[in-house]
Amino acid sequence: MIVQKYKEMLSGKSVIRQLSEFAAERGAQIGYENVFDYSLGNPSVPAPQEFTDIMINMLQNDSPMLLHGYSPSLGIYSVRKAVADSLRERFGIPYAAEHIFMASGAAGALAHAFRLVTEPGDEILTFAPYFPEYNPYVNLTGAALKVVPASTADFQINFDAFEHMINEKTMAVLINTPNNPSGIVYSAETLRRLAEVLKDRAEKYGHEIYLISDEPYREIVFEGVDSPCVPAFYDNTIMCYSFSKSLSLPGERIGYVAVNPACREAETMINMCGQISRGIGHNCPPSIIQLAVAQVLSRTADLSVYETNMKLIYEELIHLGFTCVKPDGTFYIFPKALEEDAKVFCQKALQYDLILVPGDTFGCPGYFRMAYCIDTEKVERSLEAMRKFVKTEYQTKRHE
Amino acid sequence: MIVQKYKEMLSGKSVIRQLSEFAAERGAQIGYENVFDYSLGNPSVPAPQEFTDIMINMLQNDSPMLLHGYSPSLGIYSVRKAVADSLRERFGIPYAAEHIFMASGAAGALAHAFRLVTEPGDEILTFAPYFPEYNPYVNLTGAALKVVPASTADFQINFDAFEHMINEKTMAVLINTPNNPSGIVYSAETLRRLAEVLKDRAEKYGHEIYLISDEPYREIVFEGVDSPCVPAFYDNTIMCYSFSKSLSLPGERIGYVAVNPACREAETMINMCGQISRGIGHNCPPSIIQLAVAQVLSRTADLSVYETNMKLIYEELIHLGFTCVKPDGTFYIFPKALEEDAKVFCQKALQYDLILVPGDTFGCPGYFRMAYCIDTEKVERSLEAMRKFVKTEYQTKRHE
Repeated sequence: MIVQKYKEMLSGKSVIRQLSEFAAERGAQIGYENVFDYSLGNPSVPAPQEFTDIMINMLQNDSPMLLHGYSPSLGIYSVRKAVADSLRERFGIPYAAEHIFMASGAAGALAHAFRLVTEPGDEILTFAPYFPEYNPYVNLTGAALKVVPASTADFQINFDAFEHMINEKTMAVLINTPNNPSGIVYSAETLRRLAEVLKDRAEKYGHEIYLISDEPYREIVFEGVDSPCVPAFYDNTIMCYSFSKSLSLPGERIGYVAVNPACREAETMINMCGQISRGIGHNCPPSIIQLAVAQVLSRTADLSVYETNMKLIYEELIHLGFTCVKPDGTFYIFPKALEEDAKVFCQKALQYDLILVPGDTFGCPGYFRMAYCIDTEKVERSLEAMRKFVKTEYQTKRHE
Repeated sequence: MIVQKYKEMLSGKSVIRQLSEFAAERGAQIGYENVFDYSLGNPSVPAPQEFTDIMINMLQNDSPMLLHGYSPSLGIYSVRKAVADSLRERFGIPYAAEHIFMASGAAGALAHAFRLVTEPGDEILTFAPYFPEYNPYVNLTGAALKVVPASTADFQINFDAFEHMINEKTMAVLINTPNNPSGIVYSAETLRRLAEVLKDRAEKYGHEIYLISDEPYREIVFEGVDSPCVPAFYDNTIMCYSFSKSLSLPGERIGYVAVNPACREAETMINMCGQISRGIGHNCPPSIIQLAVAQVLSRTADLSVYETNMKLIYEELIHLGFTCVKPDGTFYIFPKALEEDAKVFCQKALQYDLILVPGDTFGCPGYFRMAYCIDTEKVERSLEAMRKFVKTEYQTKRHE
């Protein structure tokens, strides 16, 4: 018989996907250029030309047997070494190839990280606002994702709630910095305090508590922002990375798990990833993409458009009277809605062809997310719609 | 704490991998060209030039946003449609795009198929000799793989044993035709009888029993052999395919699940694959590889070397007095060892630099596998070593 739990999941359609489908339908009516679609976190800039050139060069000159051959189950060794070298140089943490497992994007990396350190019945804590796909990612392993309520003043960590929720079943804490949906980078102070709580509780409960750091937006940090290196604060850190956003390669499924060399049994943990793969049908990222990415580790796509867009949107929102924490990076902003129920707020916005996502989806009701990975010209036009929306629906009414 | 079951798996090293490592070490001593390494089932012919040309052409002319963008969770629609069209034309079964789920190779496809139709505690039956990775693939889902003993006379199905073992916990039967390691194609008669048993037992137990057909070697079938289309025999068939062998792209992780349109809820099953993906970190095969493969669906690498090699090896083995079922396809042959314990036989062969894999690994003790995906010139030289091995170790002794 087909398995009911997966069948039942089909009826729980993602809010983001519904909005994105609405945007596509509305686009078919009035032209997609007139729909201000802030629903999806898809990179809007092309992969660097250097990546394309390297791919063409390899295809023209290298043996197909080499390019398309099986990757060893932990990834191609030279690629793992290149990643480790790059991380070591950049962050001063002594990563070696043996600490790197090449994974099919962040989703693949997280699938391994969760299975490394949790079994069914265990708990993983994460902090609102958070990426909603963490729910199926974690819960389908048999462990349970628990969400610590947001610290809405700054979108750092709500430590009171965290210290209340962490318990002896907590085997891992999952963070995402720079954060989707808030755009916030966790400060050194936040990470220091987080590490203290984890060390304290690990000792109290008599087992390790791992910090799983999901960092697909690591390269998208705005001017003047200091983005601390998570494993520098806590030994038992498992970093999950994806090149999807930094190199604009989301479809090529390439990322990695980096286990902090300071972890006890760090190399064993990487070897275990190869065993986990056998159970979940993961057989490494595509070989040719591994080989190409290893040659552009210090490059990114031209990410400057995201900061340009952020500034335009942030300034206009503040001008219009929104409460909003200024993003440190990513291509998201997470303002407070102008009425209590953000779902109602976002529903009204649709009349102005503004596609905004209610914060409820991200465990933070009353707020909404805008994914501003769109052309700046469209952002500018969208702000006119935003002004009209706010004035008509809220400022006019306020004076009524 | 790190999860013990994966740590413990590290100590259970695969026999094939150990042999392959031995071959590499021996190669470092005497030159790899002098090691007759029949251990690994890696394609030995390059991907077709047409595939390379298509990749280069896309990289030169198409938008990186299109080439490297996110694939929808079921695969790129045009690719799913192209696969369905190709299957429909070839096999006369009315596949549509809605019956195809693009997967990261056969391992990814099987990971979805198992989770579609089994839950922890259920059983999946397969038939010896069988691909040993089926053990972790199935057992790590929580279901249990049970192996029906081989029919060594022809490597078709041992129906007596099968009918004895199938029971109400059997939710799926897993077949692999053309078969690794025997090289045998299941005949129409075998498939007809298999379907009858499945229908009969499904009715008796009051639940569907799915046939999961793992077909990565479908394109490697030798002259004069009829390779029946599995879903034509049984409605509830889930086909798992990989382009690894047919296009020599094992590292690029591209394959698919095709649910027989005659399955009840076939389209729902494909949609469920997208949900299963969320739990196992699968986010579709690489976009650029999906797009490229869709353009060469009717092509293969030049697979003729495998048949050339098979004929040379088979004739020599028969000449030397081996008992051996002639392969119908693949790049494997599975002869009976010349002494009862094939592990001892293969150990002795190492002294002649012949790397053979004992059949115990494949659930069929007393036999051994040769993966003849190597150059024909090397096959020819290896046969001299084989003659020397057999004469010295067995024929001389026989006359002592």
